[in-house]
Amino acid sequence: MKETGEHVQVDFRTEPSRYKHWRLELDGRVATLRMDVREDGGLQPGYELKLNSYDLGVDIELYDAVQRLRFEHPEVGAVVLTSAKERVFCAGANIRMLGRSSHAWKVNFCKFTNETRNAIEEASAESGQSWLCAVNGPCAGGGYELALACQHIVMADDGNTSVALPEVPLLAVLPGTGGLTRLIDKRKVRRDRADYFCTLEEGVKGKRAVEWNLVDEVVPRTKLEETARRRASELAARSDRPADARGVALPPLERRVDGDRVAYRWVTCAIERGRGVAEITVAAPDAGPPPDPAGVQAQGAAFWPLAVARELDDLILHLRANEEAIGLWVLKTSGSADLVEAYDRLLDQHAGHWLVREVRLYLRRTLKRLDVTSRSLFALIEPGSCFAGTLLELALAADRSYMLAGTREGESAPPATLRLTAVNFGAYPMPNGLSRLASRFLAEPGRVDDLKGRLGQDLDAAAAAEAGLVTFTPDDIEWGDEVRIALEALTGMEASLRFGGPETLETKIFARLSAWQNWIFQRPNAVGAKGALQVYGTGQRAEFDPRRV
Amino acid sequence: MKETGEHVQVDFRTEPSRYKHWRLELDGRVATLRMDVREDGGLQPGYELKLNSYDLGVDIELYDAVQRLRFEHPEVGAVVLTSAKERVFCAGANIRMLGRSSHAWKVNFCKFTNETRNAIEEASAESGQSWLCAVNGPCAGGGYELALACQHIVMADDGNTSVALPEVPLLAVLPGTGGLTRLIDKRKVRRDRADYFCTLEEGVKGKRAVEWNLVDEVVPRTKLEETARRRASELAARSDRPADARGVALPPLERRVDGDRVAYRWVTCAIERGRGVAEITVAAPDAGPPPDPAGVQAQGAAFWPLAVARELDDLILHLRANEEAIGLWVLKTSGSADLVEAYDRLLDQHAGHWLVREVRLYLRRTLKRLDVTSRSLFALIEPGSCFAGTLLELALAADRSYMLAGTREGESAPPATLRLTAVNFGAYPMPNGLSRLASRFLAEPGRVDDLKGRLGQDLDAAAAAEAGLVTFTPDDIEWGDEVRIALEALTGMEASLRFGGPETLETKIFARLSAWQNWIFQRPNAVGAKGALQVYGTGQRAEFDPRRV
Repeated sequence: MKETGEHVQVDFRTEPSRYKHWRLELDGRVATLRMDVREDGGLQPGYELKLNSYDLGVDIELYDAVQRLRFEHPEVGAVVLTSAKERVFCAGANIRMLGRSSHAWKVNFCKFTNETRNAIEEASAESGQSWLCAVNGPCAGGGYELALACQHIVMADDGNTSVALPEVPLLAVLPGTGGLTRLIDKRKVRRDRADYFCTLEEGVKGKRAVEWNLVDEVVPRTKLEETARRRASELAARSDRPADARGVALPPLERRVDGDRVAYRWVTCAIERGRGVAEITVAAPDAGPPPDPAGVQAQGAAFWPLAVARELDDLILHLRANEEAIGLWVLKTSGSADLVEAYDRLLDQHAGHWLVREVRLYLRRTLKRLDVTSRSLFALIEPGSCFAGTLLELALAADRSYMLAGTREGESAPPATLRLTAVNFGAYPMPNGLSRLASRFLAEPGRVDDLKGRLGQDLDAAAAAEAGLVTFTPDDIEWGDEVRIALEALTGMEASLRFGGPETLETKIFARLSAWQNWIFQRPNAVGAKGALQVYGTGQRAEFDPRRV
Repeated sequence: MKETGEHVQVDFRTEPSRYKHWRLELDGRVATLRMDVREDGGLQPGYELKLNSYDLGVDIELYDAVQRLRFEHPEVGAVVLTSAKERVFCAGANIRMLGRSSHAWKVNFCKFTNETRNAIEEASAESGQSWLCAVNGPCAGGGYELALACQHIVMADDGNTSVALPEVPLLAVLPGTGGLTRLIDKRKVRRDRADYFCTLEEGVKGKRAVEWNLVDEVVPRTKLEETARRRASELAARSDRPADARGVALPPLERRVDGDRVAYRWVTCAIERGRGVAEITVAAPDAGPPPDPAGVQAQGAAFWPLAVARELDDLILHLRANEEAIGLWVLKTSGSADLVEAYDRLLDQHAGHWLVREVRLYLRRTLKRLDVTSRSLFALIEPGSCFAGTLLELALAADRSYMLAGTREGESAPPATLRLTAVNFGAYPMPNGLSRLASRFLAEPGRVDDLKGRLGQDLDAAAAAEAGLVTFTPDDIEWGDEVRIALEALTGMEASLRFGGPETLETKIFARLSAWQNWIFQRPNAVGAKGALQVYGTGQRAEFDPRRV
């Protein structure tokens, strides 16, 4: 956790029976998720999680709850997020934890918490599962950012309860989990009010909070639960989720770690520590898909697209948190394009079915995680690979791709090919709202339409290059040197070139705010020996260098 | 220049007879600006400007040339930017200079160079003065970013000439002057090609540069000048600038510095060093406007709106570069709203006249400089102030505003009022493309239309608050405490909340890329003792920490 690079290995897998910090209550169409952070339940030693403040461990459980509500509880049309504590909603990210953490840990922590807030918003917008927030006590910093991710915020109107983004006055950092963007772009709070609000340690309460659109409504403390429940029922009544469907259980994900190799059922990863490279291989299914959504439901978590999403998701989170020095991820695939295409057809034809929709959205979120990952991503497309449809998205998510032209001397495998399926044309939009194909062809949008004429065709290296789908197509003789040089070259563009075109709340949050966060977490005013983040809670006064850039 | 805070005072005022680094040639409708950087002409001691590399001093002259071409040369419809050196176009920002500079200096340098590139693009897009670039030798980093700001890039097709963004492989920093954004958003270079391109020290030349859209055309070295000249003539022929108008000379700007007071004709600034506050006051004109554009032409640089733009522009640049510790700028005005309104009417009625257009665009650029300035901006609206029309934009640009309700005890001045004029509704868009009014009312766009009904009215504090135009309206009794507390509070939101709504090339460059720059210029891989930026040119090898966030 410190700059020494030593911190506990983080495991992102959990389940409700192991939750330390949240209580999930199910009651028909409405679920209630109560934040009840255990002070001594920190992921790392050295800090206490007072006042419902959170660390990565708290957020891992929240993420798990978001996932399970979507897959295991099709009947839930609305989720009330509130605090189980008597006198506080949530004090935000734990300051002691931040003060002790390395720069990379802080930024990575913020990235993950941002992704979970985005998933909450996606549930409200796309999944018929609306989140609303009942603010029943002081709600500050990351606590308010959590509220901001909800579709509706109802707040108790008492002397104690307020919303606040006190990061600047208290800590000399900026809110790191989308707070500023959601304030001015989602809730469209007038910028001068937002400016003032962000300098108030004590925040804003009561009528002014409604007038400034910081919350949607305030009610007397005694009416808070009832009001939240009523609003939730109203939202749930508008949900298209089936009240009577059976959910899909998400059993513990099996992962085998063997030295520098991590293996799941469909996804494997081999780390070459010397070169700083992780080779990630995703395998196509080994049998055809079930005939219909009922069959998907019967397969449950074993349904290949869902299994791949879970495994890849876990691997991305594992590598980001636990393998900071692995700067280049090489993406590979294997197996049968016909089978992937068959699965994609099912995903496409039944896109409106609640479970199929959830699987598609989960794949979309997982692919977005790749998009915002601060690692170089290369795809290697070789004989035996299977870059088709859903798996082709991996090559399109990569910063660049190398496709072997022709065969390898002494090998019998036929030349590599790519195959487009319907899902490549919009099922998995990037954070900028465009498909990866549309992002790729910003200069010539017509090419995306042309490519629809090539759906289902096997495109060899020449055809793929002609179609603009790959970066380089060396032959067997050139391959060794070209790929070796590419893997050894200094990269580090990180996500800088991935988001051409339109901006969305998400791209603003990741491209702009994360960048600010990168800066602000370096600033001596925050992290210097006398920085606000370091001396917080010690009784010492922070020293500020007033110079600006 | 070093972190000690000591560097030479920078003066942004210059004129062609004093240029060290550029040669401006005028030939009818086409001007040619040749970069000819004097190696020993650095703004600070300690580095040599080899290979047409630049420092702030070089860019100050470029900015001056951009301004003069627009005001002094109405006949110029196209500008060819090229190098006067035999074997190099431009090697970009000087690395030794960057290596020796403080963080704030680097970021501020990049901000200014970005603004100048934006002004070049604005000239092409709005002013009938198209810039094109003739790349006649290696063109790297900031050199290529300069080319990217031009509307058309023609490159010599020889063994020597290429375009490159080698910042990452050479220096472990990212291009800081809009290169990445212009690559993928303006020129829409395919993202995988952009990724590869950004890792090539040697860059890309010849046909591939055209194929990847890095340049618009390549021609044999011997045809370069001729081709550039022909393209320029074609662009100039389409210009609406008058071939026979007389330009407006921009004489040296008079500035008196007296201790902590800086005074121009219409703009004054008083620095309170103890509080870190600069009080900037802009005075309204003291007489009515000329009757028509001919009268504007006759007044020349003395024309009030032009004089105010020049003075405010210079002051902003002065404070940013030379007063880093002054973190809060308080904006004030004085004088007659009727006179400002009369000037605004002239600016509005003759918006199509070349000179009036230039004045409006210059005011727009100057107000944009405020928008991207990393200082807190407060407006104080008091009896005797003149926040009307063009000057009202200062209050709308501020992060917040305090307007005194009623009169001051013992003073005879009538209560402060605001006045909207036509220019508030679109003449001066922010970097996000919206007027400051539209940015303010993102949540309720209808309010902007409603305000058109109040054009020309004097709005007192109650009416201004009701209309949403000001943040707070304390009365005489409340004023002292409220304003004092506001001035003393820790701010530091910088530009984070100023750009809700749509994104443009400019907002991406400033909000995203400058933020990245803030980060990248902090990274030990660049600025650590063995960082690439520090050891560049010493023969030592940089040491990289491969860890990512």
